[in-house]
Amino acid sequence: MPSLIEKLEGLTGGSGLNIPRVLALAGGVGGAKLVFGLTKILEPGSLDVVVNTGDDEEFYGLHVSPDLDTVMYTLGGISNTGTGWGIEGDSFSTLERLQNFGADSWFKLGDLDFATHIRRTQLLRGGETLTKVTRLLSSALGIEHIIAPMTDGRVRTVVTTEVGEMSFQEYFVRNRCEPVVKSLRFEGSSCAEPSSTLEAGLNKADVMVFCPSNPFLSVEPILSLPGVREGVKGFGGTRIVVSPIVGGKAIKGPAAKMLAELRHDVSALGVAQMYVGLCDVFVLDNQDRDLAQEINKLGMRATVADTVMRTDKDKIDLAKEILKTSGWELTE
Amino acid sequence: MPSLIEKLEGLTGGSGLNIPRVLALAGGVGGAKLVFGLTKILEPGSLDVVVNTGDDEEFYGLHVSPDLDTVMYTLGGISNTGTGWGIEGDSFSTLERLQNFGADSWFKLGDLDFATHIRRTQLLRGGETLTKVTRLLSSALGIEHIIAPMTDGRVRTVVTTEVGEMSFQEYFVRNRCEPVVKSLRFEGSSCAEPSSTLEAGLNKADVMVFCPSNPFLSVEPILSLPGVREGVKGFGGTRIVVSPIVGGKAIKGPAAKMLAELRHDVSALGVAQMYVGLCDVFVLDNQDRDLAQEINKLGMRATVADTVMRTDKDKIDLAKEILKTSGWELTE
Repeated sequence: MPSLIEKLEGLTGGSGLNIPRVLALAGGVGGAKLVFGLTKILEPGSLDVVVNTGDDEEFYGLHVSPDLDTVMYTLGGISNTGTGWGIEGDSFSTLERLQNFGADSWFKLGDLDFATHIRRTQLLRGGETLTKVTRLLSSALGIEHIIAPMTDGRVRTVVTTEVGEMSFQEYFVRNRCEPVVKSLRFEGSSCAEPSSTLEAGLNKADVMVFCPSNPFLSVEPILSLPGVREGVKGFGGTRIVVSPIVGGKAIKGPAAKMLAELRHDVSALGVAQMYVGLCDVFVLDNQDRDLAQEINKLGMRATVADTVMRTDKDKIDLAKEILKTSGWELTE
Repeated sequence: MPSLIEKLEGLTGGSGLNIPRVLALAGGVGGAKLVFGLTKILEPGSLDVVVNTGDDEEFYGLHVSPDLDTVMYTLGGISNTGTGWGIEGDSFSTLERLQNFGADSWFKLGDLDFATHIRRTQLLRGGETLTKVTRLLSSALGIEHIIAPMTDGRVRTVVTTEVGEMSFQEYFVRNRCEPVVKSLRFEGSSCAEPSSTLEAGLNKADVMVFCPSNPFLSVEPILSLPGVREGVKGFGGTRIVVSPIVGGKAIKGPAAKMLAELRHDVSALGVAQMYVGLCDVFVLDNQDRDLAQEINKLGMRATVADTVMRTDKDKIDLAKEILKTSGWELTE
């Protein structure tokens, strides 16, 4: 394993510190956990987080960005870890009254949460980009690391199921992921520019981390943006994927169900097969170590770790392990 | 005084009950009090309330209609009578977070109040008229009487003061009515159609009540709409004005200060002078009875009553008095 000094010799545009520049790609809860760990070992200038916005949707006339909010609230230390959405201890006065007013209220938002969406919508309507708005909101929550949307354009994940087409949130929240998925598409992605943060990360980062997020719903929307898949293929640094499937099950969400319905192997191997050509190091859980050899055959290096993040220490340990496996070892 | 039966003989399009059709024109708090009284003695089919929307403004990207809300919340029994705005017992989570997010937060809105503005904005952006939206919101609050905006178009009261031009809310809330007013204008009023409720009331009501609202800020915007001043001049029924000035002072708000600054007499007489040609009966407070003779000379009939409404009984008594003075006496 090369030392930090060795690696730094070959660096251009680095942060100047003995640490790599990391681009983390994330969806919701699973991604946010690993991102939390990464923020604890990497300075703000060394880590940018790019988040899926295919799940964005308008509720109550307001622009809601569920994955961005999950990452923001997690890093801001205010996320409701019990529900997996919203803000810890939030109240629901506004929502209850909106129900009285006949609003279609299956998408739950708390009073504090509403502030995020009201301000975001106000600023977007005023002509700001989602990148700038996210920066403003996350700064106000005390977050110094850059969190950015995958694009400032409009991409909407549409799920085709056996009972018809629906928006991602209709599938995920309203229908609790119950309909059998036949296919997915990312409306608008062919003409949505990657955000400047994503673009910069693809060109300049030393390490790219695909967080343990749903490959269909969180990662594919990012890869579907013009030039991004090619950018990942030609990436100059180390590309690391952390499997969201452990022991044949998703830690959270419908990833396992979708792998089955879309006829993939419901395992870390099934996930790895989706990253062929896009991944240098594939991190799978200790309990899936038997799959390592098969994964190695896909042209990536399988490495095992404790990937189930229950405590903050788990998150930080996994983040360290990931940097280590990519050839960077942080001096304590 | 003619009996109800006599009056009804000459009626067209009446409600079919032994009660007149009343159109009440209102602004904020003072207007809402009298409207409350009127709703307690008139069935929903006999009373329509048309409310000033010159004070409407966008806050936090949401359409806020302060006068409509004051009337709605008052009739819905949820108004915060202590502050004169908002909803009794409301919390302020959303607003506090919006402040953290750098929103210009001098216009206070509670969490329940936000629901009104979120839903209104959502429906307006969806293409509904303000008339329909107001009907929906007020119905949800249990209000059966029609409350309607003066127009579905956009009118904005602009206040020219000695320290420059400002929107009504900037004048009223942000600057606490402190700047000296030089003039007022109602931006957009020349091309804003009167709402269908206002139009119908002008054509078909038996009684038109100008509630004790600020003549400059609440009534003039309504009169400034195309055809409305002419409609009031040619009104076929009885036009009643209730003075918002009692003992040379406004019960609430800047009416007295504005009368002075715009060089009117700061008294019920000064108010009456603004309604020449638009008023049949001018209701002034008992304590201003000395002005009755001067007001009679303006071509209207001055009548005294207890116009200061502190209790619900005060509001109902004044409402009864008003109907009586217009020639309608309700049988108990």
